[in-house]
Amino acid sequence: MNTYPKITLVGAGPGDSDLISLKGLKALSTADVVLYDALVDDALLEYIPKTALRVFVGKRASHHAYSQLEINQMMVNFARSHGHVVRLKGGDPFVFGRGGEELEYAAQHDIPTSVVPGISSSIALAGLQGIPLTYRGISESFWVITGATTTGSISRDIYTAAQTAATVVVLMGLNKLAEIVQIYQEAGKRKLPIAVIQNGSLPNEKVALGTMDTIVAHVKDRGIGAPAVIVIGEVVAKHKQFGLEQTNAIAV
Amino acid sequence: MNTYPKITLVGAGPGDSDLISLKGLKALSTADVVLYDALVDDALLEYIPKTALRVFVGKRASHHAYSQLEINQMMVNFARSHGHVVRLKGGDPFVFGRGGEELEYAAQHDIPTSVVPGISSSIALAGLQGIPLTYRGISESFWVITGATTTGSISRDIYTAAQTAATVVVLMGLNKLAEIVQIYQEAGKRKLPIAVIQNGSLPNEKVALGTMDTIVAHVKDRGIGAPAVIVIGEVVAKHKQFGLEQTNAIAV
Repeated sequence: MNTYPKITLVGAGPGDSDLISLKGLKALSTADVVLYDALVDDALLEYIPKTALRVFVGKRASHHAYSQLEINQMMVNFARSHGHVVRLKGGDPFVFGRGGEELEYAAQHDIPTSVVPGISSSIALAGLQGIPLTYRGISESFWVITGATTTGSISRDIYTAAQTAATVVVLMGLNKLAEIVQIYQEAGKRKLPIAVIQNGSLPNEKVALGTMDTIVAHVKDRGIGAPAVIVIGEVVAKHKQFGLEQTNAIAV
Repeated sequence: MNTYPKITLVGAGPGDSDLISLKGLKALSTADVVLYDALVDDALLEYIPKTALRVFVGKRASHHAYSQLEINQMMVNFARSHGHVVRLKGGDPFVFGRGGEELEYAAQHDIPTSVVPGISSSIALAGLQGIPLTYRGISESFWVITGATTTGSISRDIYTAAQTAATVVVLMGLNKLAEIVQIYQEAGKRKLPIAVIQNGSLPNEKVALGTMDTIVAHVKDRGIGAPAVIVIGEVVAKHKQFGLEQTNAIAV
């Protein structure tokens, strides 16, 4: 066992375990302890040495959820007692993942850190559905916004975004979908295309496609729930099945 | 040789060849032809079967650059003649990568396609520098904008972005740095932190840190050139060396 303390933040990618990077796998293979989240595919745990400790720190029904401070403390304590701690996080560690706080806490406790980025669901899940976030002549930017702000109310950024031509991606925002739709409708964008993707990159992936005027009904019809990514913008119309969905329910 | 035609768009990641996904490697290992860009690390070519054709389609000095149409046509023609074409692109295929056009062209010619997302430099390179794109209480969104618009002039989105609290990432915008800085200065944000990262994730990575008032000089001092990513926002101050750089040149 390596007892030189260090912490590696690793992005596990958006769901499909094959979407982790080679560098992420190499970090896992040298871990003494792995702290992993709810959105991490169990298949990734097979890359961890048999002797390593695996600690689930995510939120699941009927399971005690650790606070961020508890996770930070576990990271540092395990690094000191066991050596190489891999903090395995869904998506990319710094996209609403609180990786910044974890890096800072480790630095305050003089534990060396490194970072392995991950494929973020904010970018990848649209692409896997054939929706390009950017497209020449349609969108020259994309704006990724959390639906779960610290205050609980909707981000002011959504109001600004609704005034621009940027493709907008909202993470963790399904429970605010009606509110988001209303903001766009009030900005005069009732016909703007929008997609909602649940369990993106996984076998049980589902998608609803529509416009601001229709998407809430489509999401309900398809029984789409969290975790879901919302993609807003003219690029959504590039989806092969866009325009077909009003007449025919699709399973993707 | 497999002559059932298909095309897989694969994101190679931001530079370091170990940042490709396992799924991307699997696609490469079954390729009959690989069309690859200038930003793709040569080390990735080792994963391609020896019998496969490798075609460089990127832009390099003293090298004929193929047009997008020529690349599209090669993809389709090679799929028909050779079988599985992997289109290997820097970063993620849909982040200013024209992957959307390639998918459409393939669909118009009835070639089946699939997509393997990549780690985008827009997210990863800040993270590798210890700059979290989002941070609770500081930034609840990030906005990724191209510096290379179709018209050649600066994106209108930069003007809007300068009015928000979003972290802003500009790709392919180094030659517009002075103009971007001026937009932020005129928005009253002279002290806003900004980072410029060249060759992120590679051994020759360089970074300049500063504020709107100092960054142009720092970039010049360090001799930073393209390809570079610009990161703008209060989160940049989370970089361990932020604030030290005015007095002391750093090499990272």
